Amino acid sequence: MKDTEVLQSLVDALKCLPGVGPKSALRLAYYLLQRNRKGADTLSQSISNALEQLGHCKLCNDFTEQEVCKICSSQKRDVHTICIVEMPSDLLMMEQTHSYKGMYFVLMGRLSPLDGVGPKEIHLDRLIERIKSSEIREIILATNFTAEGNATAQYIKELLKGAEIKMTRIARGLPMGGEIEYIDSGTLAQAVVERKQL
Amino acid sequence: MKDTEVLQSLVDALKCLPGVGPKSALRLAYYLLQRNRKGADTLSQSISNALEQLGHCKLCNDFTEQEVCKICSSQKRDVHTICIVEMPSDLLMMEQTHSYKGMYFVLMGRLSPLDGVGPKEIHLDRLIERIKSSEIREIILATNFTAEGNATAQYIKELLKGAEIKMTRIARGLPMGGEIEYIDSGTLAQAVVERKQL
Ligand SMILES: [Zn+2]
Ligand SMILES: [Zn+2]
Repeated sequence: MKDTEVLQSLVDALKCLPGVGPKSALRLAYYLLQRNRKGADTLSQSISNALEQLGHCKLCNDFTEQEVCKICSSQKRDVHTICIVEMPSDLLMMEQTHSYKGMYFVLMGRLSPLDGVGPKEIHLDRLIERIKSSEIREIILATNFTAEGNATAQYIKELLKGAEIKMTRIARGLPMGGEIEYIDSGTLAQAVVERKQL
Repeated sequence: MKDTEVLQSLVDALKCLPGVGPKSALRLAYYLLQRNRKGADTLSQSISNALEQLGHCKLCNDFTEQEVCKICSSQKRDVHTICIVEMPSDLLMMEQTHSYKGMYFVLMGRLSPLDGVGPKEIHLDRLIERIKSSEIREIILATNFTAEGNATAQYIKELLKGAEIKMTRIARGLPMGGEIEYIDSGTLAQAVVERKQL
């Protein structure tokens, strides 16, 4: 008997959030409309701003509203080490360990031939170019310990075979099949410390 | 070391959702940006649409994008019974019991003198007018079983003393201090069936 399409659209849209089913979507909708209209307005605008204004750093692919992100343009980072991660959220997790001071390259994915994701889609051409044009001494492969993440690390290792660069893989302190985004900082920091030469 | 203000604003805004702390706000932000940009866009627009287009029914105060809501303009409802609830979410809960077929009046609050919420703020003048101008035979008081909800029900009962209208209060099948919004449909349906004359 409840009618309003506008309200129903809001409920449906809230279901896009992970872990939000029909019932909690309904609660969230009423919460926003009844108790926190200001917060709802801010949320709507923040999402829209983020979608519009956040682009990718032209060097490392991390989210940024600048052309080059803060890390890539920092004077305080070790420019001779580059850490390769799958997604910006992985980069964030690395930063939160406070144990890594080098540069990054975000693949924005992982090799997945069945889904049509090849070397070009994860920007390996740009990665190679960047490595060639700078004095990289170590590449830390910090893709996930999933089948695809491992294959991606292996592929990059083969690709750079012959280059005089130390290649390491973060240590498997993480559980099998584990995704970096969901690991606690301590475990991840340990994995960086114990990284092994490939 | 992470910079982007746009991203930080999104994280802060997501904290307005109930049960979302700093850590899950960060996860939600990356989820929306990395994995569900379309959903994020829809969410932003749905919130904004809801805030702009949803008004209150001029008869019952429920959320609606029309002047008069679907229930108030329905030909199939029992126009001789009116159920008084605090908030639109309470009305929704009543509807979900499928056990009530009368009309509603949403107070949009409850009496709370310390917060400056008096009879006028909960639209009791309009409620009285509506009751006078229609053939109401029963008023069901379905305010919450909190101190303020009970006081509000009591106040409305006193206000209408002398009118030839049956006044009932939904039965306390709900737990003490319970809020209607958080009760399961079955319990609430039972409470309607067992409503007592005041
Ligand atoms: Zn960058
Ligand atoms: Zn109405």
